[in-house]
Amino acid sequence: MKTPICDQYGIDFPLFAFSHCRDVVAAVTNAGGFGVLGGAAYTPEQLDQELSWIDEQVKGKPYGIDIIVPAKFEGKGEHLSGRQLADRIPDDYKTYIADLLAAHDIEPEENPRMGSAMLAGSSGEQLLEVAVTHPIRLMANALGVPPDYMIKSGKDHGIPVAALVGAKEHAIKQVAAGVDLIVAQGTEAGGHCGEVSTLVVVPEVIDAIDDAVPVLAAGGIVTGRQMAACVALGAAGAWTGSVWLTTEEAETAPHTVQKMLAATSRDTIRSTGRTGKPARQLVSDWTDAWRPNDSGHTTLPLPLQSMLAEPALRRVDKLANAGHPGALALATYFVGQGVGLMNKVKPARDVVFEFARDYLAAAERLSGTVDD
Amino acid sequence: MKTPICDQYGIDFPLFAFSHCRDVVAAVTNAGGFGVLGGAAYTPEQLDQELSWIDEQVKGKPYGIDIIVPAKFEGKGEHLSGRQLADRIPDDYKTYIADLLAAHDIEPEENPRMGSAMLAGSSGEQLLEVAVTHPIRLMANALGVPPDYMIKSGKDHGIPVAALVGAKEHAIKQVAAGVDLIVAQGTEAGGHCGEVSTLVVVPEVIDAIDDAVPVLAAGGIVTGRQMAACVALGAAGAWTGSVWLTTEEAETAPHTVQKMLAATSRDTIRSTGRTGKPARQLVSDWTDAWRPNDSGHTTLPLPLQSMLAEPALRRVDKLANAGHPGALALATYFVGQGVGLMNKVKPARDVVFEFARDYLAAAERLSGTVDD
Repeated sequence: MKTPICDQYGIDFPLFAFSHCRDVVAAVTNAGGFGVLGGAAYTPEQLDQELSWIDEQVKGKPYGIDIIVPAKFEGKGEHLSGRQLADRIPDDYKTYIADLLAAHDIEPEENPRMGSAMLAGSSGEQLLEVAVTHPIRLMANALGVPPDYMIKSGKDHGIPVAALVGAKEHAIKQVAAGVDLIVAQGTEAGGHCGEVSTLVVVPEVIDAIDDAVPVLAAGGIVTGRQMAACVALGAAGAWTGSVWLTTEEAETAPHTVQKMLAATSRDTIRSTGRTGKPARQLVSDWTDAWRPNDSGHTTLPLPLQSMLAEPALRRVDKLANAGHPGALALATYFVGQGVGLMNKVKPARDVVFEFARDYLAAAERLSGTVDD
Repeated sequence: MKTPICDQYGIDFPLFAFSHCRDVVAAVTNAGGFGVLGGAAYTPEQLDQELSWIDEQVKGKPYGIDIIVPAKFEGKGEHLSGRQLADRIPDDYKTYIADLLAAHDIEPEENPRMGSAMLAGSSGEQLLEVAVTHPIRLMANALGVPPDYMIKSGKDHGIPVAALVGAKEHAIKQVAAGVDLIVAQGTEAGGHCGEVSTLVVVPEVIDAIDDAVPVLAAGGIVTGRQMAACVALGAAGAWTGSVWLTTEEAETAPHTVQKMLAATSRDTIRSTGRTGKPARQLVSDWTDAWRPNDSGHTTLPLPLQSMLAEPALRRVDKLANAGHPGALALATYFVGQGVGLMNKVKPARDVVFEFARDYLAAAERLSGTVDD
């Protein structure tokens, strides 16, 4: 099965798989889809190693990378060190978290370190410089309009640039900025997401940009029938993330996998409690603590909230993996509403093949309603 | 084009149209779809008149009715009069609304009357008794499990009973209660809605009830391509509401139509500010006033919030229609995120035909990706 972008991207099936795990990226690419490595958390040296490993595995088959360079963040343009940014985190937020952990039988740290300012996107350019020394076939920015250096790098190296959008206004801006591929992402998506559902935002974006560039659908897509539905809407394919978190290859923590397998679609929430921007994740005592009406505690802007949250959530995850009940209640992870349909651990390759079979069945179901 | 329910319901095209306006109901039915009259706001006598008028128009073609009988509401089982229910509305809520209106240059009423307790569903049984004297082919309950008398009446008269659900757990309960048709409704829907998107809740519900009864998709569907997408997901057809609000036949207030035509998909909000239960509607100063983090004012339970809100919003609508700027800023109406795709006033009949054409094009688009 083919949509017009299959030839362009050298794939058999227009299923794009975002993952932080190189094994998933390679497995999807080798199964005929398109793996996209989430590279934002690596140092340039680490990214180089990861991409070299992928190169060996996929032997010339196409894959891409995704980094996060937010258009707006606290301290932008001020050239602050992580230390200087950390100084902007108010003490009462630190106390609030210490109290929250204590209420879950997790002892306070004497001097909790604040997390990295990674979400300030300071390392995006260096990561990209490393990435283009590998045969990547796509570079994506997961948050807002790609920075100028990404657009330029894409043009210089002949590599398409993709951007995720949650509203038609953003899609129009991205196309004007020179993006080659739009990922129209619904509110049901895991991680940073907008308010509009996939079923609405995909046709809205397609109409708004008037076929200027292909549009992939994203948000809640964990089965081939949902992918087929989006192609019926006019999408050129699907961009997925959550579904790979419960594959055999994924490095998702075991307690997180268990939570995801048990979760229904109503067990996620769009919360600012982890990064400062609305991001969908598993409901937990952590996300409850940042509900605006319960806590009375507003969240901090990007990247301060993640500098505050990530070290605490890393401690939580470590304890949760050891079975600590309080930590298990607090633990959360980015995932979309499609988690309600993710009920079994499978190899990534099998997920791709199941997508294809389910896509075919859905296409037959729909065409069966219009045959004479 | 046909899905299995077309023969069962005597229709050419599995497009169900919910509307409070009899003209829309008749126009959709006469164009080959299935009109469903929202009957909750009528007295039994009025409903009888409306249905008689529809009977004359559709000449035996199928249509249905929808009433609202919530499973839970303030005062349930206490047999309270509207007056006694109204006494449960705290004075500070009345003051809060008077202040909100005053801030928008709307003079306070001396003794504002509270609205009807209609949403307590007290008149549902009487409405149903009238409805079954007409050749209705479907009875639906828009909120929760249908009351026993509806299930019984459906069985006694051989009329299928439909129920709207926003989560798979509710669908399982509804099927166990004896419902014949499930409407799986996503969070993008106008009016009362759940949290899960259409693209996720439709396959989740279909899997959960294991083909026990047909499932219609609802939520955000205002075009044939979205309907086709839902049929690809496994739905037997589409249940729609918002799209009929901007048809020529609809009795939607002119200022509301203007707001809807201008709105993007991001101009709606799921708010408890109108009925006490989360319902999607146009964002306005009214819905802003009931945001949990801004107002500090929680909303009252069903039906108290609507008894409080409706009379105020009726005054607002009247002034808004006369061009009053404060009233225009406050005015809101139930509508789904699909409002972003509703950009032109059209006859209801044309909407049905456009749905059919767009559905066909979407089916061809999808099958074009799987042909050799």
